[in-house]
Amino acid sequence: MASLAEKAEAFRALHHGARPLVLPNAWDVPSARIFEDAGFPAVATSSAGVMVSHGYPDGEEMPRRELMAVVARIAERLSIPLSADIVAGFGGSPGAVATTVARVLDAGAVGINLEDLHPSHDRLYRLDAQLRRLEAVRRVATQRGVPLVVNARTDAFRHAPGEEAERLREAIRRATAYRDAGADCVYPMGITDAPTIATFVDALRCPVNVMIRPGLPTLPELEKLGVKRVSFGPAASYAALGLLRRASREIQERGSFDLLTEGAINFEELNRLAVARTPPAP
Amino acid sequence: MASLAEKAEAFRALHHGARPLVLPNAWDVPSARIFEDAGFPAVATSSAGVMVSHGYPDGEEMPRRELMAVVARIAERLSIPLSADIVAGFGGSPGAVATTVARVLDAGAVGINLEDLHPSHDRLYRLDAQLRRLEAVRRVATQRGVPLVVNARTDAFRHAPGEEAERLREAIRRATAYRDAGADCVYPMGITDAPTIATFVDALRCPVNVMIRPGLPTLPELEKLGVKRVSFGPAASYAALGLLRRASREIQERGSFDLLTEGAINFEELNRLAVARTPPAP
Repeated sequence: MASLAEKAEAFRALHHGARPLVLPNAWDVPSARIFEDAGFPAVATSSAGVMVSHGYPDGEEMPRRELMAVVARIAERLSIPLSADIVAGFGGSPGAVATTVARVLDAGAVGINLEDLHPSHDRLYRLDAQLRRLEAVRRVATQRGVPLVVNARTDAFRHAPGEEAERLREAIRRATAYRDAGADCVYPMGITDAPTIATFVDALRCPVNVMIRPGLPTLPELEKLGVKRVSFGPAASYAALGLLRRASREIQERGSFDLLTEGAINFEELNRLAVARTPPAP
Repeated sequence: MASLAEKAEAFRALHHGARPLVLPNAWDVPSARIFEDAGFPAVATSSAGVMVSHGYPDGEEMPRRELMAVVARIAERLSIPLSADIVAGFGGSPGAVATTVARVLDAGAVGINLEDLHPSHDRLYRLDAQLRRLEAVRRVATQRGVPLVVNARTDAFRHAPGEEAERLREAIRRATAYRDAGADCVYPMGITDAPTIATFVDALRCPVNVMIRPGLPTLPELEKLGVKRVSFGPAASYAALGLLRRASREIQERGSFDLLTEGAINFEELNRLAVARTPPAP
C-alpha cells in the first residue's frame, strides 16, 4: 500500500495533467467505492453530503470527531487518494485548523478543502487571518511529512461586498494570496459561467477547481478554459436523493418500481462496496 | 409528538388497510427524510443499506451499538414511525435478541424485522429456537409498554433443504408458527412471482411483506394478491449507487453532467433533510 506521502504526491500530480482532474465527492463508504470502481483516480468527501447523511446541516455543527470517523472509514476502504472537505477548519484560530488537519492525516486523507467563509456568521475571514490559517495547515503537514494537497476555497464572489466585478476582483485577490501561501489549487465558489471562469483562471495561473452544477460548461469546454480540477461538490447527494423522490412519485402515481430497479446495482455489488477493493497490506 | 406506543399502534394499523403499506427502506437521515417528505406514512431501515454505508457487509459484523446509533439518528429526525431491520437479532439466544429489541425501543423505532437465518452460518435457526426468540421479543416489548410491530422474516424458501415445493411448504410452516407466536406480519424472503405469492398469502391469512426487486408484480397486482406490505429492501441503495455509476460513465465518456444534475434536489433541499420536518417537542 502506498504511504500517505506517496498518495499525497500522486494526488498533487493529478492537478497538473493535460486534462482536468474530475474529482467525485462521496458521502459514505459505498458512494466513495463506486467512484473508485468507476475508474476515477481520487475521491473527495462532500461536507454537505457527509453531514446531512448524519443528520447535521452543512457547516460545522457535526462534531469534528464524528466527521473524522467518516473520513477514516472511507479512507480505510479506498486504495486511491482521498481528500477531506473540512469546511472552514473547525475553529477560527490557526492552531484549531492545524489540529483539524492533524486529524485529517490521522484519518488517512491526503488533501483538504479549506474555505474562507466563517461557518456560523456567513462573513468572510479577513485575508490576513485566512493566510495565517493556511500557513498553519502547511506547517502541520510538513511536520508530519505529508505533502498534503490544499484546495483553498474562497467565497468572496458570493459574500464579499460590492457589485459582481468588485466581488470577482476580491475573489482573485484572495485566491492569489492563498496560492502564494502554498495552496495547491484554488476554488472560487459560485463562479460557474465560461467568461468568468476564463478571467479567473487567466489571473491565477495555478490549478483552479470548479464544482459541477446545472449550467456548468461541459468537461471539454472546462479543459479549454484551463480548469484543472472539476469536483462534484454535493451533486452526488443531490442526484441520489432526487432519484429517490422521483421513484417515490412513480410508486405512488403508477404503482410501478422502474426507477428503483432499472440501472441499479445488485446485492453482491452493494456488499462488495463495503470493503476495500484490494486487500490492505498486513 | 406521539408516544412510542402511539407510533407503534399507528404503524400496526397501516398493515390492515384496504391497500398495501408501501414501506421505503432508508440507509441514512436524508434518504429517510426524503421518503417522509414524499408522503409515505412510515419508513424502515435496510440492514444492507445502513451497514454497507458504514463500511460493513450486510449481516451482523457492524457492532450493534453503531447500528443503533444510526437508527436513533434517523428516528430522532422523523415524525412518522420507523421500523428497524435487526437482521437475526445480534445473538442467537432469546436474551440476546431481547436486549437488541430493548435498544431498538431506546433508539425510538417501533418495529423490527427479525429473520430466521443464522447470519454467519447461512443455515436456518431451528423452528423451536426461532419461536423462543420471537417470544422474547414480544415479552420485552410488553414489559416496555410498546406494542412493537414485528415483521418475522423466514429464509426457508431460499435456504431450507429440498425442491422448490418443499421449501415453499417449509416457508409456510414457519411463517404460520411465527404468526401464531405473535408476529404482526410475515416476510417470505425470495418469494417474488405472483402464483407463489398467492399461495403464500392464502395459506397465511395475516399481513404478508414482499420486497421490491426486478420482476415483482406491480403494486395494483400485489394488492389483488392480498399482499399487505411492500418494502423496498435495499432497493434505494441499489438505485442510488447505480445512478452514480451511470453518471460516472456519462462524465467519462461524454464529458457531460446530465445524470448528476437533472431531477436532482438542491442545496437548500438537502440541508432541510438533515433535521426533523416539524420541530420536536421541548
